Amino acid sequence: MITTDICIIGAGPVGLFAVFEAGLLKMRCHLFDVLPQVGGQLSEIYPHKPIYDIPGYPMIKAQELIDNQMEQIAPFKPTFSLGERVETLIKQDDGSYHVVGSDGTLVHCQVVVIAGGLGCFEPRKPELANLEVYEGRYVHYMIKDPERFRDTDVVIAGGGDSALDWTLYLADVASKVTLVHRSDSFRGAPDSAEKVFNLAQQGKISLLLSHNLVALEGDGNLKEVHLTNKQKEMVTVSADHFIPLYGLSPKLGPIADWGLNLDKNAIEVNTFDYSTNVERIYAIGDINTYPGKLKLILCGYHEAALMCQSAFKYVHPDKKLSFKYTTVNGVNAF
Amino acid sequence: MITTDICIIGAGPVGLFAVFEAGLLKMRCHLFDVLPQVGGQLSEIYPHKPIYDIPGYPMIKAQELIDNQMEQIAPFKPTFSLGERVETLIKQDDGSYHVVGSDGTLVHCQVVVIAGGLGCFEPRKPELANLEVYEGRYVHYMIKDPERFRDTDVVIAGGGDSALDWTLYLADVASKVTLVHRSDSFRGAPDSAEKVFNLAQQGKISLLLSHNLVALEGDGNLKEVHLTNKQKEMVTVSADHFIPLYGLSPKLGPIADWGLNLDKNAIEVNTFDYSTNVERIYAIGDINTYPGKLKLILCGYHEAALMCQSAFKYVHPDKKLSFKYTTVNGVNAF
Repeated sequence: MITTDICIIGAGPVGLFAVFEAGLLKMRCHLFDVLPQVGGQLSEIYPHKPIYDIPGYPMIKAQELIDNQMEQIAPFKPTFSLGERVETLIKQDDGSYHVVGSDGTLVHCQVVVIAGGLGCFEPRKPELANLEVYEGRYVHYMIKDPERFRDTDVVIAGGGDSALDWTLYLADVASKVTLVHRSDSFRGAPDSAEKVFNLAQQGKISLLLSHNLVALEGDGNLKEVHLTNKQKEMVTVSADHFIPLYGLSPKLGPIADWGLNLDKNAIEVNTFDYSTNVERIYAIGDINTYPGKLKLILCGYHEAALMCQSAFKYVHPDKKLSFKYTTVNGVNAF
Repeated sequence: MITTDICIIGAGPVGLFAVFEAGLLKMRCHLFDVLPQVGGQLSEIYPHKPIYDIPGYPMIKAQELIDNQMEQIAPFKPTFSLGERVETLIKQDDGSYHVVGSDGTLVHCQVVVIAGGLGCFEPRKPELANLEVYEGRYVHYMIKDPERFRDTDVVIAGGGDSALDWTLYLADVASKVTLVHRSDSFRGAPDSAEKVFNLAQQGKISLLLSHNLVALEGDGNLKEVHLTNKQKEMVTVSADHFIPLYGLSPKLGPIADWGLNLDKNAIEVNTFDYSTNVERIYAIGDINTYPGKLKLILCGYHEAALMCQSAFKYVHPDKKLSFKYTTVNGVNAF
């Protein structure tokens, strides 16, 4: 069992900043994230995209912001369970919580903070009848370890940055990469698209534009992906692995069962401390809602700061909270 | 008359960030600040101090943050009245405002945003009977143009960074600089203090530690500053100018007369848009108060963002507000 002060669900920019604000108040944090790395949407969906509305940064790339935030919280030594979904909260007699992850990680904490972004993400799946048969071993919605695909035949589907980036990456790893896209142009970064077109011209990948997925076929193992081209003719591609990268779709997942007041897909909170209707559970960042809510990273930072002031009373019930400025006191590492 | 959309009172980090959020919504801003430069406390009181709690910056010096923010808002071409206090608000028949500054600047705007930090600052003054006689011409609480002191005899009083920094600067400008401090050690940065001690040892300035101010003397012009030393003996120093730098003290000033609901020295606001009880007047940053309020720069950034969403209806009453992310749309300059 991991014992900590605050268990944060979601390791995106807002969850990470909560570690900093908690650390200033001598509270330790453990973070869960369903994604295999920290950074949430920023690292998963648009790591190379510039962001212009982080205060004090005329421009910063998404991954650079996350890297800086990791450096900022390093003194407070947060611990992480990445690639693991939180499944269950169990309230203890003393008011504290046990948080149980999908891989069995058990965390004991005084306060739970949901910073799950636009819901805990779930991959968007193509509508293919026999998809479930191959999921897990042969169909992959995110790539944790690209080495798994070494010297195999891989079919990637999608038109965004993830599809482009992984096509470029796996071109050097897999024995054959086929990129399938229903349109004839890409939504992803133009320079990535250009690189993909170049690889296709050089014969290093196979590019099937204006093709639609029809079916997966195999005999336990995946063997082939069937498609139709623009002229509605059948096309068959050999495949050991199928990687549909259609982005992530927000879902509250198990969080929807925890007795929290919800408004559509968001968790209702107070604006004085971003607490939910359940004691010791807070929600910050894009997953919460309140009058005036803006889904901006900078707003989540503010919510994290106020949340920590409120959470302090559960973590240090015997101590008086004294508010100090970092300009005066600096940052005292754990 | 200057015509703008939003008139911001206070050009500190929060007022400056409001320009950015306003700009994203196609609203122009004019800013007043009683200080002679932008940046508020950060530039005036601790430009070289490191700040650790700006999200995404493990450490940034105060002036660097302000410089970055100025670069961030440059596309939106804000205009400034610096070194000018706002004296009067005059409501117009159509709901808009005329804002009048102490130097006579007149601004017509749809919305007024008070971002005055811990009140509009006022200098802390030494308790000297005849101080008022010499104020303005011979007694200075802030230095706008150091050239004014070229080849004159200057007495500076204080023990913080401003006193140290200006002593170092004016040592090369004035014919004689005397630094008076009631204690025998300085509160300011140790390296600045060391430089001051070195200049004193070299005879380039006169350093009077453990001295207390007693009186100013002159015949219309300032002539002398009278002090007592540790042994309570009278000491007299010739002076053309007297510059007491005891820091700034917060005062709401004329703002206290505008019919706003106040709680001690702060302006009460709603948390859904940081509006005051007076229509079209908002208050953001350290000058406002609401349940849970934290006087942090990062909280003021959030308040600025929500304020702009609300102010939009007064500036563009005929337009529908559509919320867009800078990652998708970038920043479109005026």
